[in-house]
Amino acid sequence: MKRRTLWPTILTVLLPAALQGQRGDPVRAYVDAHQPEVIGELVRFLAIPNVASDSVNIRRNATALLEMMGRRGIRTRLLEGGGPPMVFGELPAPGARTTLLIYAHYDGQPVDTARWVGHGPWQPVLRDRALERGGRIIPIPARGPFDPEWRLYARSSSDDKGPIVALMAALDALRASGRAPRVNLKFLFEGDEEAGSPQLERIVREHGALLRSDLVVMADGPQDPSGRPTLVFGARGITSAQITVYGPNRPLHSGHYGNWAPNPAMELARLLASMKNDSGRVTIRGWYDDVLPLSPEERAAIAALPDDEPAAFGFAVPEGGRGVRRLESIAEPSLNVRGLSSLYVGPQARTLVPDRAVAELDMRVVPAVAPERQVERLMAHIRAQGFHLVSEDPDSATRAAHPRIARVLARESGYGGIRTPFGHPVARRVVEAVRAGSALPPVVIPTMGGSIPAAWFPEVLGTQVILLPTVNPDNNQHAENENLRLGNLWEAIRTFAAVMEGTR
Amino acid sequence: MKRRTLWPTILTVLLPAALQGQRGDPVRAYVDAHQPEVIGELVRFLAIPNVASDSVNIRRNATALLEMMGRRGIRTRLLEGGGPPMVFGELPAPGARTTLLIYAHYDGQPVDTARWVGHGPWQPVLRDRALERGGRIIPIPARGPFDPEWRLYARSSSDDKGPIVALMAALDALRASGRAPRVNLKFLFEGDEEAGSPQLERIVREHGALLRSDLVVMADGPQDPSGRPTLVFGARGITSAQITVYGPNRPLHSGHYGNWAPNPAMELARLLASMKNDSGRVTIRGWYDDVLPLSPEERAAIAALPDDEPAAFGFAVPEGGRGVRRLESIAEPSLNVRGLSSLYVGPQARTLVPDRAVAELDMRVVPAVAPERQVERLMAHIRAQGFHLVSEDPDSATRAAHPRIARVLARESGYGGIRTPFGHPVARRVVEAVRAGSALPPVVIPTMGGSIPAAWFPEVLGTQVILLPTVNPDNNQHAENENLRLGNLWEAIRTFAAVMEGTR
Repeated sequence: MKRRTLWPTILTVLLPAALQGQRGDPVRAYVDAHQPEVIGELVRFLAIPNVASDSVNIRRNATALLEMMGRRGIRTRLLEGGGPPMVFGELPAPGARTTLLIYAHYDGQPVDTARWVGHGPWQPVLRDRALERGGRIIPIPARGPFDPEWRLYARSSSDDKGPIVALMAALDALRASGRAPRVNLKFLFEGDEEAGSPQLERIVREHGALLRSDLVVMADGPQDPSGRPTLVFGARGITSAQITVYGPNRPLHSGHYGNWAPNPAMELARLLASMKNDSGRVTIRGWYDDVLPLSPEERAAIAALPDDEPAAFGFAVPEGGRGVRRLESIAEPSLNVRGLSSLYVGPQARTLVPDRAVAELDMRVVPAVAPERQVERLMAHIRAQGFHLVSEDPDSATRAAHPRIARVLARESGYGGIRTPFGHPVARRVVEAVRAGSALPPVVIPTMGGSIPAAWFPEVLGTQVILLPTVNPDNNQHAENENLRLGNLWEAIRTFAAVMEGTR
Repeated sequence: MKRRTLWPTILTVLLPAALQGQRGDPVRAYVDAHQPEVIGELVRFLAIPNVASDSVNIRRNATALLEMMGRRGIRTRLLEGGGPPMVFGELPAPGARTTLLIYAHYDGQPVDTARWVGHGPWQPVLRDRALERGGRIIPIPARGPFDPEWRLYARSSSDDKGPIVALMAALDALRASGRAPRVNLKFLFEGDEEAGSPQLERIVREHGALLRSDLVVMADGPQDPSGRPTLVFGARGITSAQITVYGPNRPLHSGHYGNWAPNPAMELARLLASMKNDSGRVTIRGWYDDVLPLSPEERAAIAALPDDEPAAFGFAVPEGGRGVRRLESIAEPSLNVRGLSSLYVGPQARTLVPDRAVAELDMRVVPAVAPERQVERLMAHIRAQGFHLVSEDPDSATRAAHPRIARVLARESGYGGIRTPFGHPVARRVVEAVRAGSALPPVVIPTMGGSIPAAWFPEVLGTQVILLPTVNPDNNQHAENENLRLGNLWEAIRTFAAVMEGTR
C-alpha cells in the first residue's frame, strides 16, 4: 500500500474521523436502499439513442437531462452552438467560496448494432457478469440488493451516462441524509464529445462568465484497474486523419495487370510501416520534439503506480520490444491505425488490384504538442516517402504526372492536451475529499491516455482541469457491448457525494 | 506492322485468296444481318444470375446452355462433380482427323450490386459508349446496324457468356452460308471457374476419353489492346491466402491503451511491407526459384509486342522503379494484396486499437512453380518475421505466449500455370486459321497474366492448351460494370468461324 500512496508528505492529512468512517455512512446507506431507483433512472436515460449526428434523438437526451437536473433543484439552461446543445446547470451552496464545474458528455460513440450480443445498443440489459466471462442476461430486479459484479450493458452506460446519473444520485443521497454540497456546483453536459467537441471552443468563449469556476472536474473515463478511487491531473488531446492511397483508376484484374499496375494496398502498407520502428516508436520527423518532460514528482507518481497486465488484454510483450509501462507510454504523443480498408476480404474477395486503399489514424497529443503540427508532420512524412498529396480524387493529368498519390483528410477540429500541476490548491482539496470518502486510498495519476476536450478551459478561461473517472476499465468503451459494473456505479455515487460535501 | 508479326518465317504462309478476302465474306454478311438475334440470345443468357455458390440459378444457366447447344445440333450432356455442372457438347465433322476442345466458363465473379451504375449486374443494358467515357443507357434496337462502339453491360458479358454466344453464332453463320466446321468440335463449359474450379481436376480424371482432343482452345480472357486477334500460348496458375494478424483480445480505447497495446493493423502493414522491395519485387525467400526462363523465341515475341500504356489505367511509372514491361512481368509469379480490412474507415471510424486486421492475397504461378510451394514460402516468411502461426483464433494461453500471432487460411484448391511450345502443330494451324480469317494479323503471346484452370489438361490428359481471347481489355472483368464492346462480339464470331472452318 505504501508503494501506491503518492505524495504522503503533501496529501496525507489528519481527517475527521466522521469522514473516514465507512460504517454508518449515511450516503452508503442511501445508496444501498435506493439501488432500484438509480438503476431505473439510468435505464430510462440509456434507452434514448445518443449518437451526436442523430439530431432528433440527441435533443431528446438533452430534454431528459433538463428534467433530471430540474428535479434536483439545479437551475438549468441549454447552451446552443448549432449542433447538439450543451446542458448547463447551477447549484449554489450558501456561503461557499469555491466553485467546481463538473463536466461529462451525454452523447455516445457510433454503434455497429450487428456486433452487440443479445440486444441493441439502446436496449439496456443486465448481465450477471461480464459477457467475456460468460455473463448472461438476467431480469432487472424490482428491489435490491444488486450484486456489485452485475453489469448494465448499453451504449454510454459507462461513457458517460452512468457517471451523470451517479452525480444526480449523489445529490439525492446528501439531501436524504439532511446534508448538502459545501461548494458551489456548476454542471456542463456536452452532446457531441464523441464527434470531436466541435462546438466546445465557441461555447467556452461565448459563455466565459457562466462557466467560470475554481476547477473543472471531468467525470469521464475509466477508473484505475486497482478499483481504487482515481484522480487524473492530465489528458491527451487528439486529432485524426484519413489517408487514401491511389492505384489504377479502376480495380484491375490481378492476373493480367497484377505484377505491373501499382497496388495501393501494398503502397499503403509500406507507407504505414514507414511510420513506426520495430519497438513501436513513431519515426515521423519531429513527432516527439515539443514534448514537455514529466516533472520528478509526476515521474515518481507513475513509478509508484501498478501497471496494467498485457495478458488481461490478450497479448504478450515481446522480448526487448514494447516492454514500456502503459502509464509512461501515454505521457507521449501517439499514432494509432484505427481502421484499414481496400476492396474486400472474406467471401467477397476477388482477384483484383484495388483502385485505392484507406487507413484511418488517430493521433494523441500531450501539452505543448499542437495537434495541427502533428498533422503537418504526418503530411511531410508522407511527402518524404515520395507521395504527391492531393485534396480530392486525382484527375488523369495528376495521375499521369505522379507515380505515388495520396490524399490526407485531416480532422477539422482537434484539441490539445492538458496537465494540471500537482500543487493546485483546489485540486488538492478535491483529492483530500475523495480520500476521506473512500475506504481505499485514491490513485493519483499525472495524465491519462484518453482525450477530453478540456484544453479550452485553461486556454480560454485560465481554469485548470482534473478528472475523476469512476467506471470499470473493462467497460468496452467506444466498442460494442459497452457496460457498467454496478459496484462502480455505487462507488461513484459515494465519491461524488464526498467531493460535493468535502471540498471547501 | 512488321514489328508485330512474330515469326514471319514460321507462320506466314500463302493463304487462299478466298480466305484472306474480307469483302464478300459470307460470315461477315451473316453477322451484319443477324445482330439483333445474337444480342437477344446473349441478353437472355446474361439475365440469369450466375454466381457459382447460387446453386439454383447456376443450374438454370446450365439448362439454358443445353438448349442453346441442342438447337445447333450439338450432342450435349452434363458432367456432375457435386457442384455446378459442367456442360459438355460434341459436334463431329465428317472425315475430320483433328479434334479441338473449346473451353469457356458460364459462371461469373460475385457482385457488389451497389457499385453497378444504373442497373443490376443481371439486368443487361446497352450503353452508347463505355461508362467511364460518359456512356448512357440506350434502348436495345429491334434491328441493326449496331454501332461497334456500343457496349452491353452485365456480369459475364465478357467473362465468358459473350464468347459462348459468339461460338454458337459462329456455327449459325457457317451453316447459313452452306459451310461447316472442318474439325471435330468438343465444348466444355464450366460452372465454377470463378470459384477456383474445385471440380475440374476430378472431371478431367473421370471423363478422360470424353474430353480427349488434339488441342484445348480456351475462349476466356481479354484480347490484346491493339484490337488484333489474339492467341495466347500460356497462362498463370493461381492460389490465394487470407492473413489475419491478431492484436488485443477486443478492440481497445486508443487513448488509454494506444501506445501500449500492439496494433494489428500496423503489424499487418509492416508484415505486408516486408514482402516486396521498392521496385515491387517479391522478397519472400525462394519466390522466383523454380521459374523456367522464357525461350529465346518467347522472349523475342514479347519484345516485338506493343506494351500497355500505364496512363490508360490512371497511373504513372516511377523513375527507376516499376518500369518493367507488362508482358515480361506476367511471365513471373505474383503476389497481389487484393483486400484489406481492420475495423472501420469513414464515418464509422472510431478511436480504437483494432483487435485484428485481415489481408487477402492472390498469388499467380507460372509453369514449374507449384502453387502449394508458394503458400509454404509465404508462411515461412511470415514466421521469419516473428509471427506464431495459428489455424484458428488464438486462445488466451497462445496469446500470452506469443507477441505476434497470425493465421494464414490458404485456398484449398489452386492450380498451376501452363505454357504450350510455339511449335505445337495443331496450335500452329489454329494460328494460321485465325490469320486467314482476319484483316489484321494476329498477336501471338507466350503467356497471359490471368489464370485459367488449364493445367489439368496437359497434366492428366497430355493435351496442350492455347487461349483465344476475344473481348475488349477494358471490360471491367471481375469488377462492377463489366461490359462487352459489340465490335469485339462481331469479330469473335468471325474468328471462331475461321477456326472451326480453317483448322484441319
